[in-house]
Amino acid sequence: MLDNRIITILRDIVGKQYVSTEQADRICYSYDATQQQFFPDVIVRPADAAQVSLILKMANAENLPVYPRGAGSGFTGGSVPIRGGIALVLTRLNRILRIDQDNLIAEVEPGVVTATLQKAVEEVGLFYPPDPASLKFSTLGGNVAECAGGPRCVKYGVTKDYVLGLEVVTPTGDIIRTGGETMKGVVGYDLTKLMVGSEGTLGVITRIILKLLPRPEAKKTMLVMFDSIDGAAQAVSNIIRGKIIPTTLEFMDATALACVRQNANLDIPESARAVLIIEVDGDRELLERQATRILEIASPLGVVHTSIAATDEESERLWQVRRSVSPSLRKVNPDKYNEDICVPRSKLPDMIRAIESISNRLEIPIVNFGHAGDGNIHVNIMVDRSLQGQEEKAETAIREIFAKTLELGGTMSGEHGVGTSKAPYLGMELDPATMACMKTIKHALDPKQILNPGKIFPVDGPTA
Amino acid sequence: MLDNRIITILRDIVGKQYVSTEQADRICYSYDATQQQFFPDVIVRPADAAQVSLILKMANAENLPVYPRGAGSGFTGGSVPIRGGIALVLTRLNRILRIDQDNLIAEVEPGVVTATLQKAVEEVGLFYPPDPASLKFSTLGGNVAECAGGPRCVKYGVTKDYVLGLEVVTPTGDIIRTGGETMKGVVGYDLTKLMVGSEGTLGVITRIILKLLPRPEAKKTMLVMFDSIDGAAQAVSNIIRGKIIPTTLEFMDATALACVRQNANLDIPESARAVLIIEVDGDRELLERQATRILEIASPLGVVHTSIAATDEESERLWQVRRSVSPSLRKVNPDKYNEDICVPRSKLPDMIRAIESISNRLEIPIVNFGHAGDGNIHVNIMVDRSLQGQEEKAETAIREIFAKTLELGGTMSGEHGVGTSKAPYLGMELDPATMACMKTIKHALDPKQILNPGKIFPVDGPTA
Repeated sequence: MLDNRIITILRDIVGKQYVSTEQADRICYSYDATQQQFFPDVIVRPADAAQVSLILKMANAENLPVYPRGAGSGFTGGSVPIRGGIALVLTRLNRILRIDQDNLIAEVEPGVVTATLQKAVEEVGLFYPPDPASLKFSTLGGNVAECAGGPRCVKYGVTKDYVLGLEVVTPTGDIIRTGGETMKGVVGYDLTKLMVGSEGTLGVITRIILKLLPRPEAKKTMLVMFDSIDGAAQAVSNIIRGKIIPTTLEFMDATALACVRQNANLDIPESARAVLIIEVDGDRELLERQATRILEIASPLGVVHTSIAATDEESERLWQVRRSVSPSLRKVNPDKYNEDICVPRSKLPDMIRAIESISNRLEIPIVNFGHAGDGNIHVNIMVDRSLQGQEEKAETAIREIFAKTLELGGTMSGEHGVGTSKAPYLGMELDPATMACMKTIKHALDPKQILNPGKIFPVDGPTA
Repeated sequence: MLDNRIITILRDIVGKQYVSTEQADRICYSYDATQQQFFPDVIVRPADAAQVSLILKMANAENLPVYPRGAGSGFTGGSVPIRGGIALVLTRLNRILRIDQDNLIAEVEPGVVTATLQKAVEEVGLFYPPDPASLKFSTLGGNVAECAGGPRCVKYGVTKDYVLGLEVVTPTGDIIRTGGETMKGVVGYDLTKLMVGSEGTLGVITRIILKLLPRPEAKKTMLVMFDSIDGAAQAVSNIIRGKIIPTTLEFMDATALACVRQNANLDIPESARAVLIIEVDGDRELLERQATRILEIASPLGVVHTSIAATDEESERLWQVRRSVSPSLRKVNPDKYNEDICVPRSKLPDMIRAIESISNRLEIPIVNFGHAGDGNIHVNIMVDRSLQGQEEKAETAIREIFAKTLELGGTMSGEHGVGTSKAPYLGMELDPATMACMKTIKHALDPKQILNPGKIFPVDGPTA
């Protein structure tokens, strides 16, 4: 437990009602979307960058770990306070400061929920593309810290591609401003992009300038079922080779379809072994032609069924097939390890085959779905912890899957980050010199290792 | 002069024929597109990353400055060896290693000329958008180091948006690999984007993985003359507000047009006070509609003349108006300071008016043209050094222009970088904490300050 002197300092900084050591609050802020649980000693809810700065300066003086967080919807433990200390909750910083229609930018605080911003900009005919599955509750600060992705990234890129500038409180408590509100800017180092995806280990984000796009005029959703994963993967490849970049190219493999078939009330023929959900957006006439061309490209590749949405409601119904995977999964096995490997998209069939082989050999169910257009696969290793040896098998499966991913030129994480859950495997992907370079930067900016210690790299940061 | 022992080590590393201390070579590598001249002590031309690593390790041991360079076409002195030492010439690393049509990536060495890659990818129906004016001779390594831009950035973004991964030799001689060949990747810090635009101060780039796009089906070029800069600027704003993002939105102000009118054989009516060159690309039918819409948007804003190119040759002729500015400038005054400020695009009229007022008050000609769609203006302060006091006036003009740029929320450089020529003004744009953060990173990665000392930040690096 922290001594009262520190609690008093924190209360002086943010106000009494925004500091809590209550057990109920400590439980609330002890976990994220992973299954780990670690308790913070104190929960602090600052109002602005100046308060964050004072908290970090105090934490440096007192050698206290600080774990910033938004909604806690991350998949890799990025906001879990594994060494105790301060849970720095940023949800009070939740204002959309401006939406500038002339310059196509928005300025927001980190606690704004992703969907809230999307709705606000769409109301004025603009568009913020990144669409992580958690968008209805995840915050933009967390999206930036993790470099969130989503289905639309095939065409529109990831969060990083939309962050123009940041206000950041450094680990030592300095308030810095990176980037700006111009479309171009090359003065000094790109600290903006260094911060994006650094998982809160290099600074606390307190303000974000985002690039917006004009809202696409229309969209068209198609669901195409194939008799093999190879057919689906070849379709992905041929669509891209055909010079069409759809908005989304989502896939589900046979295991994911089996899951949906058994557990959701959706009509999926037995012959379907893979599904692609393909969406195109933009000019109304152009996307009609693109949709026709896409179906022509797919047709010789073992298509067993095609649905084309004529209305937004029908589009929602098609997406329902994809969205029902996650809820259905829980019915297969109670627990899962949810990985998000990413390979060059042409390597998708090789990767899926390798996962099937690992699943069969280790006799552990693995369900695959995700963003085929990016080569980004959500690999769900289904575990029943009540069975002996399942966790060890899952661990073996993860290592083998990562090894194959890297052999194919891929990465262990396309959008979820490293956090604590992938930290043990980091050395598989990063060579010692590259990791040393990253650690050098971390140590230089956070000499006492007080900000998010234990995340990404296992470091000897302080414990509360 | 360096002693013979060091020359011998360098010869052992790269081979005798790739090390020169000849006066003729020292002159060749003493300048770039700025007007500075500083002589390297030795010119070294390595063949690969391993040799670069050995050179940097030796330079650390001997405390010798190292200045990497490609074609030396930079506008801010980035490759000029201001403290002598080693000119590290990377033009032998000039292979296009692969163009992967399935994954839309290219892997290249840094010495590949930008236009060479563009031609190679266009031959297979692909597209590498960044198009700095120097593309016929600038190298991709330099483009990445400076984060080069160009007219097409309005729609397609800058070099940074196309760099997926790098092989980099750190200042201390370690070979690291950043990013990769996948479209997404969030394992560890984004060292790729940290390196892009760091002007060769954080590492020597030895390999580049670039993202490609499908080549647009067609393009359409329009030249629209306005009776005022306000009309042209309003057209830019209204086009974007009309949800159209053209490929290019280039502008020339009255001073630039006067220049072209006097010095090039092109027919430009006296009533034209500003010109926009607008290009749209993509689907053939869509761009016809976009072009029509753009002309409708512009027409009430004081249009005095419109030309629409029906063929590639006609498009080239329209671009000729823009391209003739730079050669014409030299006829106004023998020397110029070429700045490249960038403001939020809606602030363009304010900025142009401020520059006009500064030009009139200081009685020094200033010619403006550039990338209106990005708010990125090439401000040419025309100087006749034979006249007393001109340089001081130019210096005053630069400071006033930068101050106004920053007041409008802009940046001192959209695409040229800081190098040596903007280094004295850096403190106008970056607050002390932000600059300190950048310097902390530089010092951590280059403790002896041997790589590009004196660039971006004035530092006390070694002198040969």
